Amino acid sequence: METSYRPNLHLALVHYPVINKNGDIIPSAITGLDLHDMARAGKTYGVRSFYVLTPLKDQQILAERLTAHWKAGAGAAYNPVRREALELIHIRNSISEAVAHIRSMGEGDPKTLVTCARDHQGSLSHARFRDMLKNGLPYLLMFGTAWGLSPEVIAGADYILEPIKGNTEYNHLSVRSAASIILDRLLRPEMV
Amino acid sequence: METSYRPNLHLALVHYPVINKNGDIIPSAITGLDLHDMARAGKTYGVRSFYVLTPLKDQQILAERLTAHWKAGAGAAYNPVRREALELIHIRNSISEAVAHIRSMGEGDPKTLVTCARDHQGSLSHARFRDMLKNGLPYLLMFGTAWGLSPEVIAGADYILEPIKGNTEYNHLSVRSAASIILDRLLRPEMV
Repeated sequence: METSYRPNLHLALVHYPVINKNGDIIPSAITGLDLHDMARAGKTYGVRSFYVLTPLKDQQILAERLTAHWKAGAGAAYNPVRREALELIHIRNSISEAVAHIRSMGEGDPKTLVTCARDHQGSLSHARFRDMLKNGLPYLLMFGTAWGLSPEVIAGADYILEPIKGNTEYNHLSVRSAASIILDRLLRPEMV
Repeated sequence: METSYRPNLHLALVHYPVINKNGDIIPSAITGLDLHDMARAGKTYGVRSFYVLTPLKDQQILAERLTAHWKAGAGAAYNPVRREALELIHIRNSISEAVAHIRSMGEGDPKTLVTCARDHQGSLSHARFRDMLKNGLPYLLMFGTAWGLSPEVIAGADYILEPIKGNTEYNHLSVRSAASIILDRLLRPEMV
């Protein structure tokens, strides 16, 4: 097993701009279990922060409410390990606000990566990104909700991460499953 | 990449007998996203069936209702790939009914495996189970809800699968994340 290290990896779950089934750009709704599952997986793999991105104020309030119970008061006392994970969450308006927040940590602008269930030419393999993370520089790895990130977000990212291939032609994973699997591929101990 | 093969692997999500925070044996409630996420991950990795186990009739009806919308009518037409995944689901009363159902497929009794977030002496590594799956014999891999499978279920299984280790001491993954990661460790293509 390699020496455990804490990667300079930040996650973002993007609720705007994403596409619907018809390819229209929409804002998607917050799903509570996305926040919990990705925070817990992020904490398990040593991620630095987890940005929940939506410009809709009512959705920001909802995200706050869905996590607040576990971060203070009765919920935090009942299940303290849940609080530890949810403390990774930062609710922000946009991808550029997440980038600015990472920049404010003083280690420079993060390289941005998008995930996508479709194949793209020149995409970055999980194995290659696993190696890149060892350089200690900041990376922001973005996941889309609904039918995925908008074409503009994908085109504007520094890297497109290869899609997850399982054991079949079927690859319709939930964002919760996809994020968990990608974190394991990037950061699991060497011998697993 | 190795030749893709279809493992003789069956999943079960156990809602009874599981334990609560105090270690009492309880029946847990069905969570819709557990069924959807694990069915989609199971389909991605070529598992043969996904048993949703609860002896409570109202919970069985709930599980049926949470999946029926996508398996026929408007939901199936709107999102046919969701139907493909949910067709893996069999709702049954108990672990022994799941074992009997696999036996009825004519390939013998499955070996049973339990997952657990805690360390157990003599547990089976993911790498070893990955190799065992290549023998084509049937295996039933069980996941617990609530605070985990009951001690009796764990003691009665043929194998205890090692817990998932991430990159930190924290290992409080959701069952949705844990199932996804374990399937990837067992069945991802060799070169990933």
